Amino acid sequence: MGRVTERRKVIRIRDGRVSTRPDTLVAEEPLEIRLNGKPLAITMRTPGDDFALAAGFLVSEGVLAHADDLQNIVYCAGATQDGSNTYNVVDVRTTPDILMPDITLERNVYTTSSCGLCGKASLDAVRTTARFPIDDAPPVRLGLDLLASLPDRLREAQRVFDRTGGLHAAALFDDEGRLVDIREDVGRHNAVDKLVGRALQSGDLPLSRSVLLVSGRASFELAQKAVMAGIPVLAAVSAPSSLAVDLAAETGLTLVGFLRGASMNVYAGEHRIALETEPVAADQG
Amino acid sequence: MGRVTERRKVIRIRDGRVSTRPDTLVAEEPLEIRLNGKPLAITMRTPGDDFALAAGFLVSEGVLAHADDLQNIVYCAGATQDGSNTYNVVDVRTTPDILMPDITLERNVYTTSSCGLCGKASLDAVRTTARFPIDDAPPVRLGLDLLASLPDRLREAQRVFDRTGGLHAAALFDDEGRLVDIREDVGRHNAVDKLVGRALQSGDLPLSRSVLLVSGRASFELAQKAVMAGIPVLAAVSAPSSLAVDLAAETGLTLVGFLRGASMNVYAGEHRIALETEPVAADQG
Repeated sequence: MGRVTERRKVIRIRDGRVSTRPDTLVAEEPLEIRLNGKPLAITMRTPGDDFALAAGFLVSEGVLAHADDLQNIVYCAGATQDGSNTYNVVDVRTTPDILMPDITLERNVYTTSSCGLCGKASLDAVRTTARFPIDDAPPVRLGLDLLASLPDRLREAQRVFDRTGGLHAAALFDDEGRLVDIREDVGRHNAVDKLVGRALQSGDLPLSRSVLLVSGRASFELAQKAVMAGIPVLAAVSAPSSLAVDLAAETGLTLVGFLRGASMNVYAGEHRIALETEPVAADQG
Repeated sequence: MGRVTERRKVIRIRDGRVSTRPDTLVAEEPLEIRLNGKPLAITMRTPGDDFALAAGFLVSEGVLAHADDLQNIVYCAGATQDGSNTYNVVDVRTTPDILMPDITLERNVYTTSSCGLCGKASLDAVRTTARFPIDDAPPVRLGLDLLASLPDRLREAQRVFDRTGGLHAAALFDDEGRLVDIREDVGRHNAVDKLVGRALQSGDLPLSRSVLLVSGRASFELAQKAVMAGIPVLAAVSAPSSLAVDLAAETGLTLVGFLRGASMNVYAGEHRIALETEPVAADQG
């Protein structure tokens, strides 16, 4: 089985002082995801939670939505020259009624046969593949203090980050701020897929009372993954992209960015944030 | 033509004070890259330098190596319902002798028909597709002061970052530390592809006397792009992955991580770093 970290020799330079020592690095290995035996995607990931990663990837693609869509997930038998298993190919076997997705190019991006590719087409593709509406009734409602406390709790819970500095983290909290699960990976999208895949396997989809917190930026792809899992709130420590904001506004996702202590920006879905005062319009950004 | 940034309304919360204002966000749009009319890949990118992005992507894939491999690059004529051009599909037209790559799954990752996928296979794939050896004669030799100065100069040169906080940056410096080019993008790999594509178009490949600096982490994919462009030194502000270090060691790439002022770690290719003293072995990482 692959390891989450690996050791390598490093030359360390600190203000002109030079030393050699072993260093702990985040492991990165390719994972091929097959669906009922057919190769579907390859991602560079940190080994570990591979079945959850594969399952979560297929939730993001609209293939899986419920635990009983899944028959089982297996590592392909080893086929290296010495017969050993590299643990880098997983096959997800579904019940027979699951449709194979049409993923011809890069993962999570949908192509058109015309030249009309645009951000709007990406938003439309999420809408047509979404298996759950974002449907939290009564609506999740988060206080500012609760939101402000989440990044510190993410960092406390990160087991590997402090050793390597090379991992993205994603965490699920419930609507009272309790940490439900946390995953780390060299790829930000993998960390979210691992969370969502675990939830699928546990029968917890849609995650309609959850807050997803990511350690970096909020791209379109991460917002898409939140929407596909029915998550009502996505919070990011850093900036969102324009298309992530557009997707949030269109689907009803609450999107919080630059969440740093008591400071944050709310880009969409502000009805889920308990603002103590009404917003005052300001002229300068 | 797409824009590098877009404006959206945001609710800004600072220590309980709530205001609304327009905010500047990094733009994210899909780009489909076609090769001689055939769709090859889609990437989510920040609009701008699209031709360079497409050309650099094809250098990373081993398809293009010289300016005269390229016939021209065009935006596909608009095919939206109203006939307008979304500027999100580019077609790269090559001279007839260029071989079409076999890219069947995700970009930059090579698949095998067996279950033997592993990090080693990824390293082998780079070696077999590399068009240039890393060949700097006499070797590039960088002083610690020069290396230490690069991150500040990257940040000074970043035009968009301070406004949105959402962009990755990549810069090329020459071996005397002069800034040659800088690109920014919502995707780290795109920023590097834009740099490399520009160099291809200018007839500057291989970049055998260049230092590539990236604002984030050094993944396998970024190390691969440096190798494919013949770049001898990759420096990253944050951590490298294990597989990036392995690729650097195998190809002769110098890999510097955690480059922060006078502190840095050298993971491979230390003969290009002018250490003032010999490294002293230390027991503790």
